[in-house]
Amino acid sequence: VRARDIGIAPGLFAPGPLNAITDVGDIRVGQVTRIEGADVRTGVTAILPHGGNLFQDKVPAGVVVANGFGKFAGTTQVAELGEVETPIVLTNTLNVAQAIDGIVDWTLRQPGNESVRSVNAVAGETNDGHLNAIRKRAITRADVVAAIEGARSGPVAEGSVGAGTGTMAFGWKGGIGTSSRVLPPALGGYRVGVLVQTNYGGTLVMDGLPVGRALGRYYLKDHGERTAADGSIILVVATDAPLGDRNLTRLAHRAIAGLARTGSAFSNGSGDYAIAFSTAAEVRRTPARRARVAAYPELSNDAVSPLFVAAAEAAEEAIYNSLLMATTIERQATAEAPAARGEALDIAAVRALVARH
Amino acid sequence: VRARDIGIAPGLFAPGPLNAITDVGDIRVGQVTRIEGADVRTGVTAILPHGGNLFQDKVPAGVVVANGFGKFAGTTQVAELGEVETPIVLTNTLNVAQAIDGIVDWTLRQPGNESVRSVNAVAGETNDGHLNAIRKRAITRADVVAAIEGARSGPVAEGSVGAGTGTMAFGWKGGIGTSSRVLPPALGGYRVGVLVQTNYGGTLVMDGLPVGRALGRYYLKDHGERTAADGSIILVVATDAPLGDRNLTRLAHRAIAGLARTGSAFSNGSGDYAIAFSTAAEVRRTPARRARVAAYPELSNDAVSPLFVAAAEAAEEAIYNSLLMATTIERQATAEAPAARGEALDIAAVRALVARH
Amino acid sequence: VRARDIGIAPGLFAPGPLNAITDVGDIRVGQVTRIEGADVRTGVTAILPHGGNLFQDKVPAGVVVANGFGKFAGTTQVAELGEVETPIVLTNTLNVAQAIDGIVDWTLRQPGNESVRSVNAVAGETNDGHLNAIRKRAITRADVVAAIEGARSGPVAEGSVGAGTGTMAFGWKGGIGTSSRVLPPALGGYRVGVLVQTNYGGTLVMDGLPVGRALGRYYLKDHGERTAADGSIILVVATDAPLGDRNLTRLAHRAIAGLARTGSAFSNGSGDYAIAFSTAAEVRRTPARRARVAAYPELSNDAVSPLFVAAAEAAEEAIYNSLLMATTIERQATAEAPAARGEALDIAAVRALVARH
Amino acid sequence: VRARDIGIAPGLFAPGPLNAITDVGDIRVGQVTRIEGADVRTGVTAILPHGGNLFQDKVPAGVVVANGFGKFAGTTQVAELGEVETPIVLTNTLNVAQAIDGIVDWTLRQPGNESVRSVNAVAGETNDGHLNAIRKRAITRADVVAAIEGARSGPVAEGSVGAGTGTMAFGWKGGIGTSSRVLPPALGGYRVGVLVQTNYGGTLVMDGLPVGRALGRYYLKDHGERTAADGSIILVVATDAPLGDRNLTRLAHRAIAGLARTGSAFSNGSGDYAIAFSTAAEVRRTPARRARVAAYPELSNDAVSPLFVAAAEAAEEAIYNSLLMATTIERQATAEAPAARGEALDIAAVRALVARH
Repeated sequence: VRARDIGIAPGLFAPGPLNAITDVGDIRVGQVTRIEGADVRTGVTAILPHGGNLFQDKVPAGVVVANGFGKFAGTTQVAELGEVETPIVLTNTLNVAQAIDGIVDWTLRQPGNESVRSVNAVAGETNDGHLNAIRKRAITRADVVAAIEGARSGPVAEGSVGAGTGTMAFGWKGGIGTSSRVLPPALGGYRVGVLVQTNYGGTLVMDGLPVGRALGRYYLKDHGERTAADGSIILVVATDAPLGDRNLTRLAHRAIAGLARTGSAFSNGSGDYAIAFSTAAEVRRTPARRARVAAYPELSNDAVSPLFVAAAEAAEEAIYNSLLMATTIERQATAEAPAARGEALDIAAVRALVARH
Repeated sequence: VRARDIGIAPGLFAPGPLNAITDVGDIRVGQVTRIEGADVRTGVTAILPHGGNLFQDKVPAGVVVANGFGKFAGTTQVAELGEVETPIVLTNTLNVAQAIDGIVDWTLRQPGNESVRSVNAVAGETNDGHLNAIRKRAITRADVVAAIEGARSGPVAEGSVGAGTGTMAFGWKGGIGTSSRVLPPALGGYRVGVLVQTNYGGTLVMDGLPVGRALGRYYLKDHGERTAADGSIILVVATDAPLGDRNLTRLAHRAIAGLARTGSAFSNGSGDYAIAFSTAAEVRRTPARRARVAAYPELSNDAVSPLFVAAAEAAEEAIYNSLLMATTIERQATAEAPAARGEALDIAAVRALVARH
Repeated sequence: VRARDIGIAPGLFAPGPLNAITDVGDIRVGQVTRIEGADVRTGVTAILPHGGNLFQDKVPAGVVVANGFGKFAGTTQVAELGEVETPIVLTNTLNVAQAIDGIVDWTLRQPGNESVRSVNAVAGETNDGHLNAIRKRAITRADVVAAIEGARSGPVAEGSVGAGTGTMAFGWKGGIGTSSRVLPPALGGYRVGVLVQTNYGGTLVMDGLPVGRALGRYYLKDHGERTAADGSIILVVATDAPLGDRNLTRLAHRAIAGLARTGSAFSNGSGDYAIAFSTAAEVRRTPARRARVAAYPELSNDAVSPLFVAAAEAAEEAIYNSLLMATTIERQATAEAPAARGEALDIAAVRALVARH
Repeated sequence: VRARDIGIAPGLFAPGPLNAITDVGDIRVGQVTRIEGADVRTGVTAILPHGGNLFQDKVPAGVVVANGFGKFAGTTQVAELGEVETPIVLTNTLNVAQAIDGIVDWTLRQPGNESVRSVNAVAGETNDGHLNAIRKRAITRADVVAAIEGARSGPVAEGSVGAGTGTMAFGWKGGIGTSSRVLPPALGGYRVGVLVQTNYGGTLVMDGLPVGRALGRYYLKDHGERTAADGSIILVVATDAPLGDRNLTRLAHRAIAGLARTGSAFSNGSGDYAIAFSTAAEVRRTPARRARVAAYPELSNDAVSPLFVAAAEAAEEAIYNSLLMATTIERQATAEAPAARGEALDIAAVRALVARH
């Protein structure tokens, strides 16, 4: 189930029709899930900011590093130029090379990109090494290209799929989650969507409910130090509001606030990144606009705050969806590693907690 | 009352004996409260990292700008050199000049500083202009020096005092708050303390309880856009763990996570800053150590996570204390401005909410 | 003399009519020089981005910290909001408080600012404590207001004036300098101007000429370690090109490249800051534009490089002008400090070097 | 020839015995050069901070993004944790994926790394697409591993080799260059070494000599806008001084100052990065030290300035070496692209310029 189905609906604003990042503009999402043999449990999730030529028609963007223990590729160029020019691809920690390779490969092959010689691939990762034989580096360039080419509008598969196939969150099975918000007309009517790959720890709180404590599973329980809190999260934030790159960076920051509300420990080993972009056609950086001077509409600093609230809310709910939609994943024992089990969150228990409060 | 007195005790770790920043090392706090005439409602709060010569015996430190709509002084040198060399002074937005002036004046006059010609004053602010005739710039250099010279160990006055005299938070009276945590011996036994000046908005949540929603007072209620969410917060974080400046910067980041959990909107106009320092004697940058090469003990990256959790918890509780300890402050009508009232949070109502959950 | 008068004309582009920052838009500069008694040798320099209400009609801006051993005020808000809303004031290290106070005071008093309650004062400094009794903190709020109110278009006084009255550079007398560049029409015809307050050290090179080595005065001469390299520089960069805040930040970075070419040691104790803003009317953030969505023209990333070159060139020449226009300043012996002499660079010797190469 | 052979010896300090980055500690450099067929002209350069297990015995490090139009991998983790745990690999823009893949592959296979599941590969690049058929992505994982495994102490091949095989600088053939400096005993006797991959543009100046102008080849000549200035540089800086990560970051900044002195245009399209690390055994982050608290000696802020000067000097000379040691490289015409020629700098002309000044 999704969070809202069991009464967990954080925040003030209503979700969009799909309650997904694909509610925003023309965003497409594609996923490849690799569950094979005893211990391959991993995948790829690709987010395409729009359906056109992403390299030619770049989108303004900003990126935030909340805790940089991670291998997120492409941050320095996003920050310097304020734009994204490729799909955003998520995968596991040791397959970032393949993610970049697939993005580059696909970009070079797009019609119109025949003379492109520089591509800033944006690729995030979290470490699914508990359930996945990560050292095998199972993801290939072809998987990445398949995820990109399979990207579609519409509902987004959540839970133990794509880049979330093998991830863990708060000691339970994590995964891919998404959510969206629509501002009321008086505040501009803009949309904000978030997609997350959850693989971090702490003490799970769901819209104020102390789930981790109630279920007896949380970081530093009995004050034992475990690495269970490590692991990372990537948050991809989209809006159709005409924001410039600076305010998109600020919007990405607010997704981190949503993360904090879920009880993240923000531990040393957690690579926590957020990236935000605008799908508004009028801020897209087309070749014509990039030629010299172009006029870009921009929502003013004074008017962005409701979007900030929406980004935090959608991030929070996307995280809950990633947990509630995840299914149990098991890794079998091999010569290299013992069996492991990523147990889905006990939905009945969460329902009971919701009912009690 | 303080949060813990009514059953609001966020997090895993126990507080220190005073549940205050003064539980850490030899920290001293001094405050000057200016409530005068119809509309002066402001003050100064000074935090001294230790009782010695702060300029000569600098403390390692890091600073984080969560949202830079603020006038916090001293950030660039703290970041470049990784140290604080003065008291940290908080006041109102339009009196930062006087705060700097007081810090510089006091520092130049300390024995041993006779040839000092450069002082990096660290001064934070929030905007108390709703309850205080801020354009009068009532705070003087003398007030700042008085706060510094009056700094003492022991319990810290909270609520509508010092730099929190005229501040508002979540639509109620905000102010100064503090809290601390002690790690269990197995995790090093270190202490973390936080002191906050609260003046921001959003939708108040107290350890998961939806106070703002329940009491019908929150940012964007009825989706009306109000500036009520603006205003800022300063978080001062201290630890006696031997952290270097990089990990202190990371520790400051985690105080922002605690802020997020209280329901902050992180709105455009909110200047949200955190600064962290270590009181450990062995990392203090004395003249002898600064002469050439010195060996500094440092807690490793791998071991800092429990401190991160403690900083977030203490920040969260310090904020609750600032609200629960605040008393109602009124500004009388004048030719320049109408009357205004900063109403204390209804503690009975909060108690009722606590009881119900 | 100015650099160009003796054949030192770095770079490719021609200067504007005044070869000064006032060649750009409607910029005004005002200075107050305080040479009094035995040992007051200091001052104030104020740069006004335009002649209107600076607080209401903000200019897009970016700031760069090349080495943060300094007390530059206002950086975090400039970075967060991408704008400057006050005059930019330069003075000595221990009078930053007075600079802020004067800026705030003047801003609050401007017609139209009657309800302003928050002002982000931008104030830079360098340490003139070698020639000036800096601990006296001679600069007053009134001096700062006088510099702002005295700001004028037209030629800018250089050398030992204003905030450069008591500064030293490369072991000689430094001070205020300025220069400008005009891009050819094919590159947009834009202008770039720079004003500097020089007070740093290293090994002076003038457009490739090894002045410091030739005249036997440079940092680490005979490998003795001296603090002579410390001291700082502030570079103020202006352009009339329609740049957004991100590209203005990048433009400010390029002024640091010009600084590097002069032989700066970028020593630990040198606080090196650059701030850039655009005077283009169409990017000015007026109340109407700030109300909600406004269209701002923006020169694209692909087209900014010639401006980058111009900023580096103008910064380099502004520095040379600050040295060549500076006159010898002496401080008399007092009970507190011995006599000191800030000797003007030997122009005849420089001319001879120019002639030889 | 190397710069020093023809009288170009920038700065104050003497080089080390090899005048190469390998003068510092136990650094090893390995290179693979791929010159094949009509149009493959590229390669790999790997720098190993020491000869032990790099992942287990991490080195403190800092990274600087002078202009982020680049795909440098690993920056966020270096900044967050202050350390490098792999070889630093340089290659061409479209082969960063293969660089990461090779680094990860090699790291996972090292004895002692059997349970490593997270590797922060540090890989820099510049765009050799003028001379190299970059879209072929000729570099393989095996090339990268070969460069790492072939790394040796001793002299370093310069010019058109390794990652510099196909690069251009200032319109001439660029490539790999290196240089070092030794501080005199009174300043600590520390060493600083720099290795560069040059592929950028501007107006070449060699220790003050206007080579670009004299030879009539420079960016914006005749004010025509060309992309010739684009292309990037990576600077790798090493020292055996016991610096912490913050001061290593500052050291990396100073290499950018050396870059500025060579006449770099710092154009929009130039990805300019510097990374610095310390080889001092006593600051190496070994498993034992990373277990909890360890004492690290650290050169104080007040004592780092001579190292800053040395880093700028060595960077400058490394760049000259990359140009002077480069040999002409030609690409033959193919169906995809016309023939191109990267002509070596005319050494006789440079000698003549040196002689004249």
